[in-house]
Amino acid sequence: MQLTELARQLALEHRGGDVEIRGVAPVEQAATGDLTFVTARKWLQAAHGAAALLVSSDLLSEAGAELAGRPLLISRTPALDAGRAGLLLGARELRVHGIHASAVIDPTARLAEGVQVGPRVVIGAGVVIGADSVIHAGAVIHDDTVIGARCVIHANAVIGGEGFGFEYVDGAHRKIPHLGIVQIEDDVEVGACTTIDRARFGATRIGAGTKIDNLVQIAHNVQIGRACVIVSQVGIAGSCRIEDGVVLAGQAGLVPHVTVGRGARVAAATGVAVDVPAGVTWSGWWGGPHRENLAQINALRKLPEFMKAMRAIMRGAEPSGG
Amino acid sequence: MQLTELARQLALEHRGGDVEIRGVAPVEQAATGDLTFVTARKWLQAAHGAAALLVSSDLLSEAGAELAGRPLLISRTPALDAGRAGLLLGARELRVHGIHASAVIDPTARLAEGVQVGPRVVIGAGVVIGADSVIHAGAVIHDDTVIGARCVIHANAVIGGEGFGFEYVDGAHRKIPHLGIVQIEDDVEVGACTTIDRARFGATRIGAGTKIDNLVQIAHNVQIGRACVIVSQVGIAGSCRIEDGVVLAGQAGLVPHVTVGRGARVAAATGVAVDVPAGVTWSGWWGGPHRENLAQINALRKLPEFMKAMRAIMRGAEPSGG
Amino acid sequence: MQLTELARQLALEHRGGDVEIRGVAPVEQAATGDLTFVTARKWLQAAHGAAALLVSSDLLSEAGAELAGRPLLISRTPALDAGRAGLLLGARELRVHGIHASAVIDPTARLAEGVQVGPRVVIGAGVVIGADSVIHAGAVIHDDTVIGARCVIHANAVIGGEGFGFEYVDGAHRKIPHLGIVQIEDDVEVGACTTIDRARFGATRIGAGTKIDNLVQIAHNVQIGRACVIVSQVGIAGSCRIEDGVVLAGQAGLVPHVTVGRGARVAAATGVAVDVPAGVTWSGWWGGPHRENLAQINALRKLPEFMKAMRAIMRGAEPSGG
Repeated sequence: MQLTELARQLALEHRGGDVEIRGVAPVEQAATGDLTFVTARKWLQAAHGAAALLVSSDLLSEAGAELAGRPLLISRTPALDAGRAGLLLGARELRVHGIHASAVIDPTARLAEGVQVGPRVVIGAGVVIGADSVIHAGAVIHDDTVIGARCVIHANAVIGGEGFGFEYVDGAHRKIPHLGIVQIEDDVEVGACTTIDRARFGATRIGAGTKIDNLVQIAHNVQIGRACVIVSQVGIAGSCRIEDGVVLAGQAGLVPHVTVGRGARVAAATGVAVDVPAGVTWSGWWGGPHRENLAQINALRKLPEFMKAMRAIMRGAEPSGG
Repeated sequence: MQLTELARQLALEHRGGDVEIRGVAPVEQAATGDLTFVTARKWLQAAHGAAALLVSSDLLSEAGAELAGRPLLISRTPALDAGRAGLLLGARELRVHGIHASAVIDPTARLAEGVQVGPRVVIGAGVVIGADSVIHAGAVIHDDTVIGARCVIHANAVIGGEGFGFEYVDGAHRKIPHLGIVQIEDDVEVGACTTIDRARFGATRIGAGTKIDNLVQIAHNVQIGRACVIVSQVGIAGSCRIEDGVVLAGQAGLVPHVTVGRGARVAAATGVAVDVPAGVTWSGWWGGPHRENLAQINALRKLPEFMKAMRAIMRGAEPSGG
Repeated sequence: MQLTELARQLALEHRGGDVEIRGVAPVEQAATGDLTFVTARKWLQAAHGAAALLVSSDLLSEAGAELAGRPLLISRTPALDAGRAGLLLGARELRVHGIHASAVIDPTARLAEGVQVGPRVVIGAGVVIGADSVIHAGAVIHDDTVIGARCVIHANAVIGGEGFGFEYVDGAHRKIPHLGIVQIEDDVEVGACTTIDRARFGATRIGAGTKIDNLVQIAHNVQIGRACVIVSQVGIAGSCRIEDGVVLAGQAGLVPHVTVGRGARVAAATGVAVDVPAGVTWSGWWGGPHRENLAQINALRKLPEFMKAMRAIMRGAEPSGG
C-alpha cells in the first residue's frame, strides 16, 4: 500500500515523498518497505532504515530539521495509529473466537452479548460478565465475581480466590472466611497470571478503565479507582485504597491499609509504607517523595568518599595535631 | 437476625442495645443493618455508620468510653467470629464440590476421603493427597507430590515442577535432573499462581500449618517449618531453611542456602543475603536488624542536608578562612 | 549398586573403599547407603553421614586431607553426574508422555517430531514448535508463537499474550494493538507461571540456550541473547535488550529500553535503571557497580554513628565552646 493511501485511510497528515509500505516494524528493525513510529528524538537515528516514519506533531516541531524530506505520517496518537496501520496492512491481533467448547462455565453464570471465552477458562457460579469482554485461555473466574463490559482478562489470571487472612489462635493460623467478591468495572484489563482476591466482606473493587499488567497481586478488599495503570509484578496488600489515575510502576509494593492519592505516580520497585499524597511522585526502597529520594541516592553515592575525607580532616583537627 | 440471637449462636458476650443485623460489612462501608468488626482504635471512627460492632476484649479495655452505649459483640478472635457471623447471616464461602469431571487425575494418584478437586486441575502419577484437602481450578500437582490433610491449593498454582538448576559445561547450561519431590504437610495453604519446585534429591518440604500467599516462588530443596506465614510475591531460592513460626512479608527475597531462624519476622521487600537469627525482625534492601535499618533510613534522609552543612563548616574552618 | 560399578557406568574416577549405594541424597540428609555430592568445602561437614561423596576435582585439590579415606567419585560436572547416578539407581524425572488428549491444539499449529504436550495445554493458531520440545500442563502458547527444538515450557506459563501498552487519549487509556509475536530459539527453558508478551511489531525474542525460571515477566519487544540465566521473579520491561551470557538474579527489575551488556551479572533484587556495561556485576536498589554499591551499604551502616560523632565534634568546635 502506498503511504498516501495509508494516510487517507488513517485520516493522518502526510509529508515528504510517497513510498510503498509493506508492513510496520519496531524502530531498530525497520528496513525498506517498513513504516515505523518514533515518539522521541533519541530514537530518530535508529529509524534511519525505515521507508517512512509515523511521528507525533510534537516531535515534528522539535526535530523538524532532522525529518526534512523524509516520508512522514503525522499523528496525535502515534502508537495507536501505528497499530491501525499494521492492521490495515494485514497484521492480526490476538483474538478469541466465541466461547470455546473446553471452557467450564457454571450454568448460573451470566455472560452478556459478545463475551468471548478462550479454551480451558473456568467461570464459577453466579459470575456476571458484561458485553464484549474477552476471557483468555486458562483464566479462572471464581464464584460471584462481577466483570464489566469490554474487559480483557488474560491467560491463567485468577480472579476471586480467597484472600490471605488467618487469625492466630492457640498456636495455629486459623482461616478467616472470605465472604465478599471481586467487582471489576468496565474497560479494565487484567494481565496473565495476575491474582485478584475476593474481599472478606463487601468487594475488592477495580475501577473503570484501569489497566493491570501480568503477575500483579491484588489482595482482599483493595479498592482501586478509575483509569489507573498498574505495571507488572506490583503487589498491593489488603485493604489498600488507590485513587483515580494512579500509576504504580513495576514491582512496587504496598503494605496493608495505605492510600495512594489521586494521580500519584509510584516509581518502579518502590516500597509504599505510608499514605502517598495526591499528585506526587514517590520512590525509594522505603518510599518517599521522588526528589528527596534522588537527593538521598546521590548523597549515598558520595558517602564513602565523604566519610573518608571527614575522618582525615578530623584526624588533622585533633588537639595533638594542632 | 437480632444481635442478641447472633451473640447466642456465636457464644459471644453482648453489650449495648439489641438491633437487627442483616449482614457483615467492612468498616468503611458498614451502614444500617450491618455488623462490622474493629480491632484497633484508629478504625473506630470509620465504623460510625454500623448498626453494631464486633470488637476484641482488648479494644474494649482500651476504648471503653468511645464504645459506651453502642451495640457490641465481644470476642477473643474477632476476625474469625465476624466470618462466622457472616456465614450465619447467609453469606457463602468459595467451595469446590467433589471432583470435577474436567480434572485430569492420573490413575496411580491416591486421593483420601473428602478431597475436593476443581475444574481443569491436573494431578500427576503417584501423587498422594490427604483427607479433606481442596485443590482449586487449574492447579497443577506434578508426579509424586505428597500433600497432607486439610490443605488448600489455590487456582493455577504449580507444585512439583522441575527446579531451576543447570551446570555450565563447554559454553552451555546443561539441565540438572531433578529427582526429588515436593512434600506438603497437613493444614498448609498454597496461594494462586504460586510455584513450588521439586528437589534435586529428597524433598522440598512445607511444614504443617504453614500458609503461603499468591505468586510466591519456592525453589528446589527449600525446607519450611511449621506455622510459617509467607506473604505474596516472596521468593525463596534453592536450599533455604525457614524454621517454625517465621513470617516473611510480601516481596521479601532470599538468596540460596540461607537459614531464617525460628520465629523471625522478615519485613516486606527485604533482601535476605545472610542467615537471620531466631526471633529477630529483619529489614532493608540488604537485610539486617530492623532497628538498625530504621536508624540507617533515618540517617539517610538527613544525609543531603548533613553533607551540605558539613561542607559549609569545613570551608569556614579552612586555614585561609581562620 | 556398588560404588565401583556406578563409577564404571558414569565413567568417573573412583577413590577410597567400595560401598553399596542405594540412592542419592542432599548433603544434609545423606545417610547409610546414600551418595551425596559436595561442591564446596563448607558443605563437607554436613555430609559426614553419607556412604560416599561425589566431588569436583577442584574440591579434591583444595580439601584432599579431609577427604582422605572416604569413598569418592570425582567429577568435572558433579551436579550433572549426581543426577545421572540417581537415574541409574532408579529415580525418575518428571516426564510428559506424548500429546495428552486434554490439550487444546489449533489445527493450524505445527508440532515437530518428538514434541510432548501435557494435560490442558493450549496451543493457538499458527504456533510452530521444534523437535523434542516439552510443554507442561496448563501452559498457554498463544497464536503465532515460534518455539525452537528441545525447549521446555513449564506448567501454567503464558507465552505470546498481548503486551501492556496503552495510549492516553481524552482521559482514557486506549489499547495499542500488539501485532508481533514471541520467538523462542532452541534449548530454552521457561519456568512455571512465567509470562512472555508478544511484540507490538516484530518479535519478542529469547536466544538459544537461555534459561528462565518461574514467575518471570518478559514484556513486549524484549530481546534476550543466548545462554542467559534469568532467575525467578525477575521483571523485564518493554524493549529491553539483554545480550549473550547475562545473568539476572532473582527479583531483579529492569525499566523499559535498557541494555544489559554481554556477560554482565545483575544481583538479586537490583533495580536496573540505566544501561549496564558488558562484563560487570551490578547491584543496588538503584543499581550501580557492585563494588560501589557494597561500599555504599557499608558506609550507610556506619552513618548513624558517624553523624552522631560528627555532631558531637562540631558542638565542641563551636566558638562558644572554644
